[in-house]
Amino acid sequence: MESMMIWMPIVMAILGLIYMVVKQSWVMKQDAGDGKMKEISDHIYQGALAFLNAEYRLLAVFVVIVSVLLAVVAYFVPTTSYLIVIAFIFGAVFSAFAGNIGMKIATKTNVRTTQAAKTSLPKALNISFGGGTVMGLGVAGLAVLGLTAFFIVFYKFVFMPEGWTNTDDMTLVLETLAGFSLGAESIALFARVGGGIYTKAADVGADLVGKVEAGIPEDDPRNPATIADNVGDNVGDVAGMGADLFGSYVATVLAAMVLGNYVIKDMGGNIADAFGGIGPILLPMAIAGAGIIISIIGTVLVKIKSNDAKEAQVMGALNLGNWVSIALVAAACFGLVTWMLPETMQMKFFGEGTLEISSMRVFYATLVGLFVGAVISSVTEYYTGLGKKPILKIVQQSSTGAGTNIIAGLATGMISTFPSVLLFAGAIWSSYALAGFYGVALAASAMMATTAMQLAIDAFGPISDNAGGIAEMSEQDPIVRERTDILDSVGNTTAATGKGFAIASAALTSLALFAAYVTFTGIDGINIFKAPVLAMLFVGGMVPVVFSALAMNAVGKAAMEMVQEVRRQFKDIPGIMEGTGKPEYDKCVAISTQASLKEMMLPGLLTIGFPLVIAFVPMLFGMNPMAIAEMLGGYMAGVTVSGVLWAIFQNNAGGAWDNAKKSFEAGVEINGEMTFKGSDAHKAAVTGDTVGDPFKDTSGPSMNILIKLTCLIGLVIAPILGGHTETGVANTKEITIEKEMKIENNTAVATIVYTVIENGKVVTKEETFEGSKLDVEAKIKDFEKDNNQANEANKKIIQNVNITKG
Amino acid sequence: MESMMIWMPIVMAILGLIYMVVKQSWVMKQDAGDGKMKEISDHIYQGALAFLNAEYRLLAVFVVIVSVLLAVVAYFVPTTSYLIVIAFIFGAVFSAFAGNIGMKIATKTNVRTTQAAKTSLPKALNISFGGGTVMGLGVAGLAVLGLTAFFIVFYKFVFMPEGWTNTDDMTLVLETLAGFSLGAESIALFARVGGGIYTKAADVGADLVGKVEAGIPEDDPRNPATIADNVGDNVGDVAGMGADLFGSYVATVLAAMVLGNYVIKDMGGNIADAFGGIGPILLPMAIAGAGIIISIIGTVLVKIKSNDAKEAQVMGALNLGNWVSIALVAAACFGLVTWMLPETMQMKFFGEGTLEISSMRVFYATLVGLFVGAVISSVTEYYTGLGKKPILKIVQQSSTGAGTNIIAGLATGMISTFPSVLLFAGAIWSSYALAGFYGVALAASAMMATTAMQLAIDAFGPISDNAGGIAEMSEQDPIVRERTDILDSVGNTTAATGKGFAIASAALTSLALFAAYVTFTGIDGINIFKAPVLAMLFVGGMVPVVFSALAMNAVGKAAMEMVQEVRRQFKDIPGIMEGTGKPEYDKCVAISTQASLKEMMLPGLLTIGFPLVIAFVPMLFGMNPMAIAEMLGGYMAGVTVSGVLWAIFQNNAGGAWDNAKKSFEAGVEINGEMTFKGSDAHKAAVTGDTVGDPFKDTSGPSMNILIKLTCLIGLVIAPILGGHTETGVANTKEITIEKEMKIENNTAVATIVYTVIENGKVVTKEETFEGSKLDVEAKIKDFEKDNNQANEANKKIIQNVNITKG
Repeated sequence: MESMMIWMPIVMAILGLIYMVVKQSWVMKQDAGDGKMKEISDHIYQGALAFLNAEYRLLAVFVVIVSVLLAVVAYFVPTTSYLIVIAFIFGAVFSAFAGNIGMKIATKTNVRTTQAAKTSLPKALNISFGGGTVMGLGVAGLAVLGLTAFFIVFYKFVFMPEGWTNTDDMTLVLETLAGFSLGAESIALFARVGGGIYTKAADVGADLVGKVEAGIPEDDPRNPATIADNVGDNVGDVAGMGADLFGSYVATVLAAMVLGNYVIKDMGGNIADAFGGIGPILLPMAIAGAGIIISIIGTVLVKIKSNDAKEAQVMGALNLGNWVSIALVAAACFGLVTWMLPETMQMKFFGEGTLEISSMRVFYATLVGLFVGAVISSVTEYYTGLGKKPILKIVQQSSTGAGTNIIAGLATGMISTFPSVLLFAGAIWSSYALAGFYGVALAASAMMATTAMQLAIDAFGPISDNAGGIAEMSEQDPIVRERTDILDSVGNTTAATGKGFAIASAALTSLALFAAYVTFTGIDGINIFKAPVLAMLFVGGMVPVVFSALAMNAVGKAAMEMVQEVRRQFKDIPGIMEGTGKPEYDKCVAISTQASLKEMMLPGLLTIGFPLVIAFVPMLFGMNPMAIAEMLGGYMAGVTVSGVLWAIFQNNAGGAWDNAKKSFEAGVEINGEMTFKGSDAHKAAVTGDTVGDPFKDTSGPSMNILIKLTCLIGLVIAPILGGHTETGVANTKEITIEKEMKIENNTAVATIVYTVIENGKVVTKEETFEGSKLDVEAKIKDFEKDNNQANEANKKIIQNVNITKG
Repeated sequence: MESMMIWMPIVMAILGLIYMVVKQSWVMKQDAGDGKMKEISDHIYQGALAFLNAEYRLLAVFVVIVSVLLAVVAYFVPTTSYLIVIAFIFGAVFSAFAGNIGMKIATKTNVRTTQAAKTSLPKALNISFGGGTVMGLGVAGLAVLGLTAFFIVFYKFVFMPEGWTNTDDMTLVLETLAGFSLGAESIALFARVGGGIYTKAADVGADLVGKVEAGIPEDDPRNPATIADNVGDNVGDVAGMGADLFGSYVATVLAAMVLGNYVIKDMGGNIADAFGGIGPILLPMAIAGAGIIISIIGTVLVKIKSNDAKEAQVMGALNLGNWVSIALVAAACFGLVTWMLPETMQMKFFGEGTLEISSMRVFYATLVGLFVGAVISSVTEYYTGLGKKPILKIVQQSSTGAGTNIIAGLATGMISTFPSVLLFAGAIWSSYALAGFYGVALAASAMMATTAMQLAIDAFGPISDNAGGIAEMSEQDPIVRERTDILDSVGNTTAATGKGFAIASAALTSLALFAAYVTFTGIDGINIFKAPVLAMLFVGGMVPVVFSALAMNAVGKAAMEMVQEVRRQFKDIPGIMEGTGKPEYDKCVAISTQASLKEMMLPGLLTIGFPLVIAFVPMLFGMNPMAIAEMLGGYMAGVTVSGVLWAIFQNNAGGAWDNAKKSFEAGVEINGEMTFKGSDAHKAAVTGDTVGDPFKDTSGPSMNILIKLTCLIGLVIAPILGGHTETGVANTKEITIEKEMKIENNTAVATIVYTVIENGKVVTKEETFEGSKLDVEAKIKDFEKDNNQANEANKKIIQNVNITKG
């Protein structure tokens, strides 16, 4: 029974997907409202589809190019399997499919939520959250299904059809599986960055001409960009977030599996457990599988009863579901860890040798992950929440103009890095101290186990936002908008905390990938006291900053195109302002789509290009692959550290500006006076929000993808750089060297058998010295001296010394 | 003769100081103008003195506290000398004295420049640049004088009175000398951060109430804050920049000396050269000494002839002086390097063993430094210069409001990190490849050799700015203001490029200090694959971000106090607006002074506190000192990488906003229309400038101090953490272990003599095994196995194996 555990995650994933289909058909059966509502909803649906189709066309080209590249690599590097290409394609397709499910259900749920809001708030929540649940389970289910299916195929049918052989073979399995993760994360690049540009270009374009120039309200159907704006909410907040977490989920579990394999290696390469000897590798998948079922339980708990409920009740319902699922994951981790892991394990710690680690310590590490996931949301909530001190300060500073509002917002975002980074640093330290890098990766896995629940909470926000837009555009009774506004307001909070969760997941995922990278390449560590490594740390630190700037500029450019199109329509289409002429919504949708995909090219190129340049250009100049591996590691660390900082800074500054602006809607007290919308202070706050929009919706969230994709590309390149033999990983430290000396008559003959790494491959060589004993001994000394002065990676390490005196 | 080279830098420094005194008395002899001008100038002078006095009082307290701390450390750590306290105090006093000279001459030169501008532009340049020269030579002369004098005292009279002994003793000399550098950099913290807060608080306060509320022009004498504003220019731009470069200069030369000592160590601990065996240590001091004379030559070249000269001619004159001095430094480096260094040296490279390095390669490394210094200025000029593409883009984006102006400015600052970081990374890599970390430090030394010239160019800007202010306040003929405006405009450009130079110097200085730190502690390197080190890299990366936010908030708070005081005076003092009532300038000066010193406490505490917490808290928990040293190294790297990024980002964004705003003064074309001051686009640009002011004058430049001070504190803590013996540094890798086995009859006796580090001290221990040969061999194996599993720093390294068979 226990040996069947390998199938458990896949069963859970399928159960989750079945539940998703049931929920989906329930949502679709709900009343989709009358003519005008349906028409608008159809426009949004068509616009979203148009974006998806355009994105898929571009993606297809991208996938083909990368597949060819991977195939070329597989051809030239004997340790790389062709199957990585298949895994890559499936990773991309699965991620795209998950995005598709999410987009479709979101654009179908919005109108049904509006319709339900006509009569009942609980029903509206039920439907909008139902849509979010479909999205969440789609993402989580497909992620676990794809990853575990490929693992089983590679493990059971390709690389170890006869059962467990050794950790080197398992490394090959996992290296090939990394293709799936790379595919998923590549789609995330398109979805998150492209989506981020799309949504803000449409938003800014719609606002600048509609609200500011023409003086019509938000979501007014006369505005040609209004459909694009609503499509944008789905593209950016639903599909983008979904792809982001899909990527994190897969990468985290993968990294934990890689590190699980290294636990087995540290324990002598073989453990006898009831799980075919791969308990530590199966564990992260099992946690992910359990997480799906737990998330379903969590979503079922989200409901309210009263039609007069306010934000607090809705928030309370979401919190109940969230906390219960976190608690259940903790319980599941306890059960799975104690069941599936050996009671004590040997793990190698850098500079501390091999230590005994009990399985309970691994469980504590998972608690660290759950703690981080919960606390980072509170931190985000504090710095960006309505009525909290930082927001009130920004509101105060708005009274002296836009300049001081901007400074206050920037400072809030910057200061918010303090608790967040200390939290991450503490998590790295403690989970590592508890159970090594395996502990770090499992902490991430535990945190990600509730992904389906997190996504449900997250996706329900933009759905409610859209529902409100549809209510406005179709001119419903004000009570409808009031009800959707309650949902929307809660959705804004969950959007901010969801971003915190996404950053935390990206940060921990990157760390886990980083650890997996070091073990894949077989380098000793990443020593930043080597100047080239330090230089790359600098370069890596710079990339997120430049990436953010490019993303912000992209929004500016795309928005300008949108502005011109909207202005043209207002001028060219007769009767458009009177509501008799029909705006050409699809033209605006097309502009957002084209512009966003075009503008994401440069930042995308930066993300993918830099690690490739660092890895391959020095190789052309004959630099040692191990030295390159260390440099690339320095680059990865630079991107991760700087990327996490800029993600927190931008997300929280943006969120803070947004809510500072929103504070004026209900009125705020500034210097003892109540101040409302339309005041000078409010105008200053609107300026802050303009700056904050691309921060929080484009460049900030893109950082997640940047750091994960960078680390994943490193992981995929790792086998090319690492000290691989054709039978598996050969860690330079473990090569045995034989030195034999025979003395016969007066002639000594010494043979040294040593192993060097040439072009990334391990080659065994032999050298013979002959002559008088003194001569030969001198020659051996010289050989050893040369060896000591040689480049570390070229060194012929001497471990066993066998001197046979003849 | 050659052995007298140790006295050369001190002679050059004294020559420089003599020239300074001559120049100073020449400036003071110039006509200081009539009554009103003199009165205003005296106000500024008094205000500056008031700030200096307040600063000195606070400094005295600070110096006493730190001195006591250092004395306590010297008491408990036997390898630390009490003399470090003396060096620290002198470092602080010298730096403060240099600042004093600069402030005094600047506040005396301004009015003389105004007076000269009444008749002649060439004369006005001559005087203002003469003031800058005094400042430059004061800083450079005192820096070289203090550092070399202390070196000679420690080397010749305290630690090695009988001449060269060994590199361990020299390490003690240099560790003690680090106190001088720490003292200098501590003053820089007060001067740069406090000054930065002062100048912007006064500026913003003066503008908000004066320009915006009361509608009176800039520098109007009716504005009570106008004197504080002009004092601020001196406090921030003159004294702050001076202290910054004083600190960089001293730290760079010190770090190069430390690494020079390690070159000697790598060459066997002894070299026979004509410089008492310390050529590589003397070289950086000699380059600094030569740089002083070269800077004098450079300053002499700065002059114009025509009274109708424009900005281009003035800029041309400065450029001529600058380029000639750079070329002369290159020539001097060639001469000194080939003369003072052995033709070839052995240097250890991490992971590449010991390599032969020719002295020419060291010369090439100095060229790298000069190249960086020159190019970084051009990069800065491109991103912040009037009429350049990035500025024009910000101007265009101002037409759609403050929001887009801000986004464009932020993006410009962010993108400017791209070429800057690639330049630094290239410099690290190439200078290291040429001549190891000694090459990196000498690159920095060569760049810093022209410090006196750079400061002269830099200080002339605020002097001219002040001269213009005095012309305005004393209601001179417009031609006077026109002439000072030409100088001021050039001064704005040199201010921006000077900031680029200051960042580059801070970056290279920190790298050199970082390298010196690793050699002082004797750790193997800094491996970020160890989780605690990685955690500290994250924490280090966060600190500059939080520091910047605190500095920006400090400006906001201090400015608010200023605003309230100015408002109070406008209300309480009768006739103030009509010019009959006299504003209380000194109250505003006092507010700026108090507020700036109060508000710099928290960021200062952050800077000093974090490294101390990281070093000493884990020590309380019994953590291994070498592991702590590595963690602290990770923290230092994090601060440096992130600090350099945020320095470039903030300085360039601020400079770009400033010049985007200035573009409107001459008029700019936006969408085909000429747009001027007072337009909506201009107002948007003014908002951008408000955000940019604290960026470029407070938080941005503070980054330099933050990263240098962090690395210096690390360097001073290093001996406490490092593997020191009482006779000097004992690198764990060099401990010899003896293993002897004697077999008599059937009993084998084996003795293992090994050395471990306990509480940072090297202790020699012995272990004896007795029994049958097999038994004893098994026990030795066990001992070695335990050893391999032991914590790296506790490991008993086995190098020589002597097996004596009895």
